[in-house]
Amino acid sequence: MNEFQLIARLTRSVPSNSAVVVGPGDDCAVLDLGGDRQLLLKTDAVVEGVHFTADTEPERIGHKALARCLSDIAAMGGTPTAALITLGLPKDFDSARVEKIYSGINALATRTGTAIVGGETTTNPDRLLISISILGTVHRGKALLRSGSKVGDAVFVSGELGGSIHGRHLDFEPRLAEGAWLAESGFAHAMMDVSDGLAGDLRHILQASGVGAELLSRSIPITREARSQSKGDSSAKPPLLAALTDGEDFELVFTVGSRDAVAVLDGWKAKFPEVKLTCIGRITEQPGLRLRDERGLRGFDVGGYVHFQGN
Amino acid sequence: MNEFQLIARLTRSVPSNSAVVVGPGDDCAVLDLGGDRQLLLKTDAVVEGVHFTADTEPERIGHKALARCLSDIAAMGGTPTAALITLGLPKDFDSARVEKIYSGINALATRTGTAIVGGETTTNPDRLLISISILGTVHRGKALLRSGSKVGDAVFVSGELGGSIHGRHLDFEPRLAEGAWLAESGFAHAMMDVSDGLAGDLRHILQASGVGAELLSRSIPITREARSQSKGDSSAKPPLLAALTDGEDFELVFTVGSRDAVAVLDGWKAKFPEVKLTCIGRITEQPGLRLRDERGLRGFDVGGYVHFQGN
Repeated sequence: MNEFQLIARLTRSVPSNSAVVVGPGDDCAVLDLGGDRQLLLKTDAVVEGVHFTADTEPERIGHKALARCLSDIAAMGGTPTAALITLGLPKDFDSARVEKIYSGINALATRTGTAIVGGETTTNPDRLLISISILGTVHRGKALLRSGSKVGDAVFVSGELGGSIHGRHLDFEPRLAEGAWLAESGFAHAMMDVSDGLAGDLRHILQASGVGAELLSRSIPITREARSQSKGDSSAKPPLLAALTDGEDFELVFTVGSRDAVAVLDGWKAKFPEVKLTCIGRITEQPGLRLRDERGLRGFDVGGYVHFQGN
Repeated sequence: MNEFQLIARLTRSVPSNSAVVVGPGDDCAVLDLGGDRQLLLKTDAVVEGVHFTADTEPERIGHKALARCLSDIAAMGGTPTAALITLGLPKDFDSARVEKIYSGINALATRTGTAIVGGETTTNPDRLLISISILGTVHRGKALLRSGSKVGDAVFVSGELGGSIHGRHLDFEPRLAEGAWLAESGFAHAMMDVSDGLAGDLRHILQASGVGAELLSRSIPITREARSQSKGDSSAKPPLLAALTDGEDFELVFTVGSRDAVAVLDGWKAKFPEVKLTCIGRITEQPGLRLRDERGLRGFDVGGYVHFQGN
């Protein structure tokens, strides 16, 4: 059993109550305690040797730890309110380094209006671990789930994808304003953030919505890093594969009714002129994820292997 | 710099916003988003080799991980709503053991009306770590902070103290009903849960409230385990010292106006006949914590060393 299978099994039948609108399985949980806003809850951890190294600049570690949580708030169309920081500290922790991690957290928290309302430490003898929990809000009924995509929807993605490991995974800016605008506009039917690679994450939307998708290979926005990493290294992923399968892009992928596609592009360009938005394909009745290029239409497996499907 | 000093330094000037009623430093953060209820937020982690061992029954690990968070909700007089579970899993994790940990969490969650709304896993290569974040609510303005004690208040503690390491730290029942009753009754001026030993934790109330306290040694409720552990072991803590300084009791310590002391005892006995409640002393203007016994009044240091102060 791998971790994904285990967590699916563990969260299959968890205790619930009348406050729960959305439980495990979306970017955030959604809770309703009355009032005009619903609550969003999310927790996420980064671990030394897994999400950053002993050499990573501490401010960037802090930034990344909080930004990952904020990206999930963004993916629901929400606004962050408050965060709790848990530090798992090795026995010989360097307090100056820990203070710099907090500086990175605080800078991003300040910029995004997120209050830091608790800080705990625990011993994690062998390595530094930072777990952050976040509370956000979204206007009642406006949260953008993974389950709302409809056949015929246009599929959009923000920014460019791939090669995040070359540095962007430590510096990315969570798409909070963009996500909140999409939720308020009412255009988007489903949304999530791209944290495990576009192909794998889009599949979560497809499965939750009971649909499929066809993407245009040529339209996938690919970062300069993903393009250049394959040059002169025959063992590196080709750029398109990197854009589809590299992790930690933290961009937004969402679907909108085909009639609204132009309005979304125009509205986005007016509001967020510096953030790219690309229509990469459409939602289909046929399940699964397929890629169309000059050679035809091909299925795309979760693992990243592309097999030819004929035209 | 130790962990307490570090966290105090880190949380001294954290970002805040208009939703924050109480930030870092109490049992929970308190947030106000409008409506008749305020929100409580808390996070807490348990780590293999620190809070439990590789031999600990997994259901009890899960129980303890959630119960610690619930004890903090209880200490504010709140009611739990929802929890998020983060599992840091070693590479060779045993999925059956993890499922049993979840069983322990789920059983307590169900019994206390707590929804489990998210479950994440991350890799923590060397040991199992469980971090839980919890959201609760409390009626507006009813949260019991550490800062409300007044000179002349009676000091109460629930249950019995000391020797939790012999098993109770894995099985304790968070005092949710008791805490909520105290908040609703309006009797209590300040409250917290006893997690690091009565003497150290009461000192947090004293410092937050700008007061001192005098306890009656003979009135401190001591568990059977704390009494028996010192028998035949001259290196063990004497029972009173164990009750004052052993960690993980997870009982409630609170102060009430002296006029209400009898009403609290009577009301408690009627509502919670099976849970002991003891008046152990009173709040004084003179700062610090002092113990009175047949030999007189003595100061009590944080570290547990008792020095004689004269009568």
